[in-house]
Amino acid sequence: MDGKTSSKTAGKPIRCRAAIVRKAGEPLVIEEVIVAPPKSREVRIKIICTSLCHSDVTFWKLQHPPAIFPRILGHEAMGVVESVGEGVHEVVEGDTVIPIFLPDCGECTDCLSAKSNLCSKLPFSVSPYMDRDKTSRFTDINGETLYHFLFVSSFSEYTVVDIAHVTKIDPQTPPNRACLLSCGVTTGVGAAWKTANVEVGTTVAIFGLGAIGLAVAEGARLCGAKRIIGVDVNQDKFEIGKKFGVTDFINSRDCGDKTVSEVIMEMTGEGADYCFECVGLSSLVHEAYASCRKGWGKTVVLGVDQPGAKLTFSSFEVLHSGKSLVGSLFGGIKPKSDIPILIKRYMDQELQLDEFVTHEVDFEDINKAFDLLLEGKSLRCVIWMKK
Amino acid sequence: MDGKTSSKTAGKPIRCRAAIVRKAGEPLVIEEVIVAPPKSREVRIKIICTSLCHSDVTFWKLQHPPAIFPRILGHEAMGVVESVGEGVHEVVEGDTVIPIFLPDCGECTDCLSAKSNLCSKLPFSVSPYMDRDKTSRFTDINGETLYHFLFVSSFSEYTVVDIAHVTKIDPQTPPNRACLLSCGVTTGVGAAWKTANVEVGTTVAIFGLGAIGLAVAEGARLCGAKRIIGVDVNQDKFEIGKKFGVTDFINSRDCGDKTVSEVIMEMTGEGADYCFECVGLSSLVHEAYASCRKGWGKTVVLGVDQPGAKLTFSSFEVLHSGKSLVGSLFGGIKPKSDIPILIKRYMDQELQLDEFVTHEVDFEDINKAFDLLLEGKSLRCVIWMKK
Ligand SMILES: [Zn+2]
Ligand SMILES: [Zn+2]
Ligand SMILES: [Zn+2]
Ligand SMILES: [Zn+2]
Repeated sequence: MDGKTSSKTAGKPIRCRAAIVRKAGEPLVIEEVIVAPPKSREVRIKIICTSLCHSDVTFWKLQHPPAIFPRILGHEAMGVVESVGEGVHEVVEGDTVIPIFLPDCGECTDCLSAKSNLCSKLPFSVSPYMDRDKTSRFTDINGETLYHFLFVSSFSEYTVVDIAHVTKIDPQTPPNRACLLSCGVTTGVGAAWKTANVEVGTTVAIFGLGAIGLAVAEGARLCGAKRIIGVDVNQDKFEIGKKFGVTDFINSRDCGDKTVSEVIMEMTGEGADYCFECVGLSSLVHEAYASCRKGWGKTVVLGVDQPGAKLTFSSFEVLHSGKSLVGSLFGGIKPKSDIPILIKRYMDQELQLDEFVTHEVDFEDINKAFDLLLEGKSLRCVIWMKK
Repeated sequence: MDGKTSSKTAGKPIRCRAAIVRKAGEPLVIEEVIVAPPKSREVRIKIICTSLCHSDVTFWKLQHPPAIFPRILGHEAMGVVESVGEGVHEVVEGDTVIPIFLPDCGECTDCLSAKSNLCSKLPFSVSPYMDRDKTSRFTDINGETLYHFLFVSSFSEYTVVDIAHVTKIDPQTPPNRACLLSCGVTTGVGAAWKTANVEVGTTVAIFGLGAIGLAVAEGARLCGAKRIIGVDVNQDKFEIGKKFGVTDFINSRDCGDKTVSEVIMEMTGEGADYCFECVGLSSLVHEAYASCRKGWGKTVVLGVDQPGAKLTFSSFEVLHSGKSLVGSLFGGIKPKSDIPILIKRYMDQELQLDEFVTHEVDFEDINKAFDLLLEGKSLRCVIWMKK
């Protein structure tokens, strides 16, 4: 499709390459697929590059619903608008955009409020279809439906995304940095910036220094936190963490007979002003809560635990502490208004994104990106659609 | 002691009457007691009136530690300074004050911060002694030590209170209104005003319309809430609630096969902006959380559950909701700075306190105050030390 102009492709199906998961856990297969034109309020995007997030891996491995196959995964990406459907005025052909799993319809109470990023009109879900009309835009060459993922499906040279899931960005942004802001990095940075609203001179503790935890550190650093304590089972994470502002490290396997919260209390005197749980364990949510400063400490839940895993603390602990507990989806970030701010802060060399990209591969080697993440070797591996 | 001036009593023990609990659950006995002079940073107060709070009843009934006897209960009160110990400059003889269980030392990080009301220097506890030197100022006529309660022990004509637990108030304030602000009413009003910071035009749901729940309603009304939904098992609470701004009522025994949160969702469309749990049941904390508006809903925990009673919800619910959960001790109120504001708002006829006082008795009839509260007949019963 390369080199074609919209005047030739707009309104017509596009035949291009996509990486398809045919069966849970099996290597992705790059096949020719047919991408239908965008319907009303939809945008067809030519993907420039995409990066691999843990949710892709989770839904690649998952055997049972909401898993569904054959599916085109991928939800961190950057691309250029190829054509737009009826009623789309926000972007035009050639605009640089990032697709985002979280909708921002611009019309509902939530999208109009500064306090919420949870659109009421197009509620977030793991539906395998387009957000508005609940159908797919993808078929394989035999006419079989291919399912969408998180309203993005960026492991394809072209994809169709609802305009509520599209954020226009500065075209000068390097593609392999812009794509990071689609999901993981923004979630972490936003959790510190928007959900916790970290204040200058404060102390932060981060449980789990994966890409999201490191992004929390970066967000906290950017907000002016004085001390950023990273907690992980892997000692190597301290060196990586330092790049994102981590000042202190606790190896949770090395605390002797103390709990991590006891160690944090000793280190800080009174506890951390903000604690972030990025692992996805209810027991760690409890440790994070216990590590928080009484009176004003905030615990932010970012990690995805098993559905049904209960919190392990008592209402008594909540009552007498003055602490708060809050969840953060996409870091409280409102895609269309906040992402451009993050882009600008990157372009102004305030926000660090470069260090998140540990690997880059060609689209043909997409399975290598999966291997690297599964082996814990990559933070983010960028997948380029064209060399 | 009536009529004596400080010049006669200052520095000397005072012999006066106090209501003593000699054994758990047995009627209080009014006896002569000896009240030692205030030590350094302490104030001896002549109690004018006191009101009965549920915590008094809890510690009156309690058979096991932290219960301890013989003890002088009472912690909602208003009085006049009889004399002060060394180093007390904040109040002088004759000042009108209310003693408050929660300390405000004015020196520690928390007391100096607008964000916390949990003093670090004199941490809140249920110690049976004076806060600073851990001894008692009370003895009976046989010389036996009588224990303090919540650093106040207002069921006595005179009591000694640490200056950190004393707030000076406008002497024009009616005593039987001022005493209410020592604990329960302030806790509820403060939970709406300070902890939740209820915004104008919002919707509030209150689980449990006892004195504290009604005070939350009053606080929410004062903050400009548009809709205040009261939830209780007792239908009569609706009429009482209306006096404090309750606009809608849900009898939780009358919801058929629906949960209270389902009923609240139906009534409000999207949930309440703020939910307050005032009963003290972890299961209700969960219902309150479920009744909250996604994106920004706040659940405030006010009720005291059994220590160890676990929260019943999952970290998954927290993660994806954008809601927050926060505890409130004394409604987030900072005694020395916030109580005078509440007093002023009462004097300006904005804050309603009158309706909380359902009964008034003489000190001799203090056991009647217990009966009325135990029978659920009173919101607040004021006990006057002198006719
Ligand atoms: Zn919306
Ligand atoms: Zn993701
Ligand atoms: Zn203090
Ligand atoms: Zn009380």
